[in-house]
Parts: sequence; C-alpha cells; structure tokens
Amino acid sequence: MKTPGYQSIAGSVSAPQGFRAAGVFCDIKRLGTGKGSNKGQKRDLALIVSDAPATFAGTFTTNRICAAPVKLCVERMARDTARAIVVNSGNANACTGQQGRRDAETMARTVAQTLKGEGVTAHDVLVASTGRIGVPLPMTNVKRGIVDAVRALDRGEEAAKQTVEAIMTSDTRPKEIAVEFVLGGKMVRLGGVCKGAGMIQPGMSPTGARPALRSLHATMLCFLTTDAAVGKKFLQTALNEAVAKSFNRITVDGDMSTNDTVLVLANGNAGNTPLNGSEKEAITFATALEHVTLELAKKIVLDGEGVSRFVTVRVTGAKTLADADAASRAVANSALVKTSWCGGDPNWGRILCALGYSDAEIVENRIDVGYSTPGGREVLYSLKRGRPTAATFDALCKITATPAFDLHINLNLGKSAALIYSTDLTEDYVDFNKGDITDPSTLGG
Amino acid sequence: MKTPGYQSIAGSVSAPQGFRAAGVFCDIKRLGTGKGSNKGQKRDLALIVSDAPATFAGTFTTNRICAAPVKLCVERMARDTARAIVVNSGNANACTGQQGRRDAETMARTVAQTLKGEGVTAHDVLVASTGRIGVPLPMTNVKRGIVDAVRALDRGEEAAKQTVEAIMTSDTRPKEIAVEFVLGGKMVRLGGVCKGAGMIQPGMSPTGARPALRSLHATMLCFLTTDAAVGKKFLQTALNEAVAKSFNRITVDGDMSTNDTVLVLANGNAGNTPLNGSEKEAITFATALEHVTLELAKKIVLDGEGVSRFVTVRVTGAKTLADADAASRAVANSALVKTSWCGGDPNWGRILCALGYSDAEIVENRIDVGYSTPGGREVLYSLKRGRPTAATFDALCKITATPAFDLHINLNLGKSAALIYSTDLTEDYVDFNKGDITDPSTLGG
Repeated sequence: MKTPGYQSIAGSVSAPQGFRAAGVFCDIKRLGTGKGSNKGQKRDLALIVSDAPATFAGTFTTNRICAAPVKLCVERMARDTARAIVVNSGNANACTGQQGRRDAETMARTVAQTLKGEGVTAHDVLVASTGRIGVPLPMTNVKRGIVDAVRALDRGEEAAKQTVEAIMTSDTRPKEIAVEFVLGGKMVRLGGVCKGAGMIQPGMSPTGARPALRSLHATMLCFLTTDAAVGKKFLQTALNEAVAKSFNRITVDGDMSTNDTVLVLANGNAGNTPLNGSEKEAITFATALEHVTLELAKKIVLDGEGVSRFVTVRVTGAKTLADADAASRAVANSALVKTSWCGGDPNWGRILCALGYSDAEIVENRIDVGYSTPGGREVLYSLKRGRPTAATFDALCKITATPAFDLHINLNLGKSAALIYSTDLTEDYVDFNKGDITDPSTLGG
Repeated sequence: MKTPGYQSIAGSVSAPQGFRAAGVFCDIKRLGTGKGSNKGQKRDLALIVSDAPATFAGTFTTNRICAAPVKLCVERMARDTARAIVVNSGNANACTGQQGRRDAETMARTVAQTLKGEGVTAHDVLVASTGRIGVPLPMTNVKRGIVDAVRALDRGEEAAKQTVEAIMTSDTRPKEIAVEFVLGGKMVRLGGVCKGAGMIQPGMSPTGARPALRSLHATMLCFLTTDAAVGKKFLQTALNEAVAKSFNRITVDGDMSTNDTVLVLANGNAGNTPLNGSEKEAITFATALEHVTLELAKKIVLDGEGVSRFVTVRVTGAKTLADADAASRAVANSALVKTSWCGGDPNWGRILCALGYSDAEIVENRIDVGYSTPGGREVLYSLKRGRPTAATFDALCKITATPAFDLHINLNLGKSAALIYSTDLTEDYVDFNKGDITDPSTLGG
C-alpha cells in the first residue's frame, strides 16, 4: 500500500472533530446469564455521538441467523444520515425473537431521548451487540447504562479508552487506531475501535445478503468515525472495498458470527468539499480507510482466542479468484494445518491435503509451498512443483516456529491471488471455549 | 436397521473361509522420518490373501491430492478379481511423485513374487498406505516386511489381531468385527478391520471422482473380506450404499485425507449361488455389509484423536438432501460447537450460528434443537421454533455432559434428513497434532 501521508494520533473514535464517546459499566453479562459475576466490572456499554448529522455506511454478517441489532442497522441503511452508535457487550441480542427486536429499538430510542435538546431521533441511532447468543437483554440495566453513557460523553482520549473497553468480550487488549491526513487542503481525522476474538471469520456485505463470492465466518465489531465530508454512496463503496481487503480476509476459527458489524460515520466537520468518489482526494480517503481497517483487522487476528501464531496465507497462481479464495480458506481453517502451526511444524502434507479437498482447481505437481517473515520477499520453499526442495526441516522451522510468518502457496495454474490472515489452533482456544458448565459465566457466545 | 440374523464371530478378516492374514513389524515410520523411534515396535505392514480369485469393490478419497496406492487401486478397479491387499502404516506414500507410484507397484509385485506357486500376479494385488505425507517409503524395509508377512500368513485369530495392529496409526484401540449369517442356505462370513483416527471426514467415491453430493474430509482405511459369492457389480453397489451410510457420515476434524480407502474381497468359498443384486438374499448381504461398515465407522469416531464425546448430529426437516447434509456438517465441524461439546455445554447459540452460515436454507423461527441419549426416542428440546423452551440448563447438561448423546435439529422446512457421527474438539487433539518439532517422530500425517 502506498503511504498516503497520514500520521497516527491518539483518541480513536473521539479523535475526529465533532465526535464524543463514552464507555460505562451496567452489568449486562451477569444479569444475562443469571449467575456468575462480571469480574472487575469491565465496562459493557459504549456510545459514540456525532455533534452533527453524519453520512454513514455499514457492512453486516451474511449469516442467515443474524442478531436483532444487525437487522435494525440494515434497515437504517436507507437513511441519509445518522447521529449515534450504541453498543453493548456481554449479550449478543441474537436469537431473541420479537423481544430482541423491541429491545434493540428501545436502545436506539433511549439514546435519542436521553440526548434531549440535540435533535436526535431514534432513527438516527445505530445499534450493535456482542456476547452470548439467545439470552434476552437485561433492559433495566441497559437503559441505566445509556443514561450514564450520555452523561459521560466526552471528546478526550480517556473517553475513547473507555469506549473501546466497553466493546471488548474475550479480547485481551483494546484495539484502536486514529490517523490524520490532508484532504483537499484540510486536515481530516479518521479513527476506529474494534473487538474480536472468537467466532471469527467475517463475511460481510452492505445488506447482510450473501454476495456471489462470499466469505464465511467472530463476532467482530468495528466502529469508525471521521470528520471528513464524504458522500454516502462513496462512503459505502469505500467501506465495501476496505472490508473486502481486511475484516473479510481474516479467520480465527472459521465460525462466522451472527453479529459481525462495521459502521462508519462521516460528519464533515473538517470542512473539506464533500467527496463523491471521482476526485483524486477520494483515493486518499479510501487508502486511509483501507489502512485503518486492515490494521484493526490484524489486531483481531493477533488477539484471537488462545492464539500463539499469526499466519498470513498467500495463495497465488489460482485459475480464478474463487479458486484462490477457496484454497486460502481451506488451508487457513484446517484443524490439522492450524495445530501443526501451533507446534511450529512446517508440515506441507497437511497443506496439500487441505488444498486437495478445497473447491479450488489444483494440480499436485504444480504446487509451490514456502515461508517467509511477515511481508518478507525472501521465500524459503519447502515444495516446488509438488516435490520437496533441499530446504532442511531445521531451516524451515526457523521461520515457522516464530510468532508470525507468511505461508506462500503458488498453484501455478493462473493469475488469481488471495490472502487470509489466520492463526494457529491451540489448547488455550479449546480450554477457553469449552468453558465450565458449573459456572455459566464462563460459557461463551 | 432390521436384524438380519447374523452372529458375531472372532477373527475379523481371517474369519471368512479361504482367507489368510498377517501383520509384521518392518520399521517403516522410523526410517520414514529419519529420526525418532517406533516405540515398542508396533507392527506396520499387513497382508490379506484370498486362496482363490475374489471379486472386489472399493471406495476412495475424493481429495484431489491422492496417494500413489489410491491411484493404483482406482486403476485396478477395472479388473474382475483380486487376490490380496498389502497395507503399510507409518508412511502415506502421498505427494511422493513418480517414485511413490513405482513404490506402490513394487509393493504389489513383491507380494505376487513372494506368494510363488499361488498363481498371483502383481495386478491381483491391491495396495494401501497411511501415515506421514510426503516422505518416500523405505522400500528395503517394506520388501523385507512383505517377505516376513507372506511367511506369517495364517487363518487364525492371532493372525487377524496382528493384521489390525499393523494398520493402526494414532488409533488407541484395534477396530475389528466379523459376523456369520445364512445366505441361500449356506453359512457365510463377513469380517473387517479399520483404522482412524485423525484427518477424518471421508468423502469417498468408487472412482475417486467427486459425486454431485460430496462429503468432505481421515485417513481411514477399511478392509473387508467375505466368503460369500457376490457378483462384482452388485458388490460395488452394495459397498457404495454401505459407505454412504457409514464412513462418509463421520467426521473427527473435518479434514479429508489423501488416502481414505475401503476395499472388500468376496471369494465365494461359502458356495452360495453368486449374488447379482436381484435376489432376496442380496438384501441380506447388503444389510450385513451396512451393519459391519457402520460398526467399524463408529469405532473410528469413538477412537478419534483426543475425543471425549461421541455426538450423533441428526438433522431432519430440511428442504433438500443437500441442505440436510450441509446443515449437519456445518454443526459437526464447527470449532465453537465442538469445543462446547468438550465442555458438556448444551450451547444452542453456537449451533444456530453454524446452521446460519451453512449452505442450507434455514428460517430462524422454525428451528427445533434437542438432545437424547444415543438412539433414544425421548428428546429434551432446548429450542422449539427458534425460542428457548422451559428445559433447564441442568436438565440439558445431564444429557450433554455424558460421553455420548444425540443432537436433534429439525429445520421444519421439508422432509429431508441427514446424520453425522461426530466428536468434540479437545485440548488432547491439539496437543497430539501439534507434535514436537524437536522430535519429528511425534509429527503427524
């Protein structure tokens, strides 16, 4: 990616002018499961508010079972502007039927009512949830949380930190970013927060409907703000492209969530001429959006549940884009390949096996398999044209037994390429996700 | 399944009249990896020989990367009869190029030459391998093993026990069965051995070509012998149907092997009128074959790598058979569903999530999810028409925290059904498959 000349700044979603944010604790998880405790009272409700109406765009899970807040956001997409995003963790509000839908609407309405005097209607509020599936939201607490969040809204770095904490579930680290860059002579800012860290293989589309080339499978949530002025149509196009190259190219466990959501608000406070996509500045903005989403997507992979290695699977030489995608996902999601990565083992047999059962067209004696450092150009091949090279096991292990490496697979059948950011499969992943039925607070989403 | 009146007998593959078998140790694995040791010198080469030419049938992996012995067997399928099956463990002879092909042929030729005076040609010998991918076979040892195996050939139970030991890899227990039953007034016998226990989701076809409705993903090997007289065409038809209901309905880790092979030899020693499929006795034989393959397939699942629970996923009410298959496999292969089973957690949210990203058509508020004891008729539903029932968490755990249970999913959209025999995903599976790169003998296939 060409460097568009942006600078990292502090503050994530509250870094752009005209945005306020807050994260509060209202005890959603404990009440949701009826037992256990939300140890340390981690914040669990976040609110992001734009001072002025903002154009917006979004992408949503293509899982046929999708959460009530996702359905509500998809409907909101027809509107021109939005003012706020309210998010809770600890409860996915998925598979919660009519009550779930009413609860999502109540969240939006409560935000609008509590922001009294700011001219916000319920329809201006977008909603997202993450956590356990199938449990009704504890609405008394959620409503109290929203009132507290409105009171806590602030433009400072501390508010941004509290916001990112509030959206975390199994994440061990906050995931945030903000950059500033010049756009049409004006300094603009773009910031975001996101969360992973299991049920991660997003395959989002702008409508939640499955695209022809769909990807599968976290709940990942990402909320982006910018003070650039961006036309709604171009904002959606730029977000689609950015998500296609970032969140839709990651997998932790191959499970696509019911709640995956990416939302961006652009309030125009920077005062640039609004972008419609035809300007040269449009490229600058799109590039910055790609950078921000890719950095956030990588943070999700790096902090995946139990993850000990970050592996970028790079497939080239596929006959079609669908083949490249199928080949990269088969390898990135194979239990045997992922456990071999856990061991640091450069096992190419399991890789070939996964390629062989994928839907991709392959020819055994054409396949090259090699390794490099992350983004490295020097590839050490273990396999060339289907045959082992002279590379020694020890030399290969020097790359594969490190915390991050790239796997290079050339099918040598065509010109299509795809990559997936993936992880190993570890005992810690299993231990975390099996939970403990004697303590339901340990049971996952 | 109706009981066809068969009795269990001892001896597995050597139980039918006119078959001899042997299993010997020739140190294939140690030489294959160049390091480590085959602790305890587990037998690693098996031979099964019919005294007379036998009709035969087979099904093979549909992985596009398939091992040299699989390719050789697929070619042999055009022949009318076979005499012997030679099998090695410790090395898959997969991804071994032209040398691999020559080695498979050498194995067949060595068997034929060593059985001198019995009228066996190289083309009468079927070959199978299982173990690490991509390592050339240590042919000096393999040839010595074949000579030792021919010398050890015997009809007794001890020979059968040594045979099943020789095909085991990560299996912790031998998997064998034999039955006898009356067919057209004659007592006939049907016996078999098989092995798992990782890289298990077979999707076999008679030619290795993918069927329209294909299943995915072990190396599982199964060798069956019978002294019934069965026409080759009907034998293949009966095997296809039996495999479709047994080995092709199991999954341990969702990875389809390069080596999956099922072979059956029918030598006619029992003296019944040869079956062509149109007789009523044909049903008796087919039913016995289904019983034997299903029992063996279940043994593979029960002994899957690191497995602590055996779960039968039963999907009903699907709109199409393809939908039923897709829904059952998505649930049975979901990392999050499998880890919840490991914990004994009746987590229906993850089940709905997997159904939602499967290729099956589903409607959230139609779905029923429930549990029963294995094969039990009394189903305790956690979800009816997409909504939680009054069943308590503790009551559900009483079923799901046991070593084996059935998961019942009714999509309530149609009349198609499918089932998958599956397992949980455990820390032990990860630990076993990550291996230890400082001791390559621990690294898997």
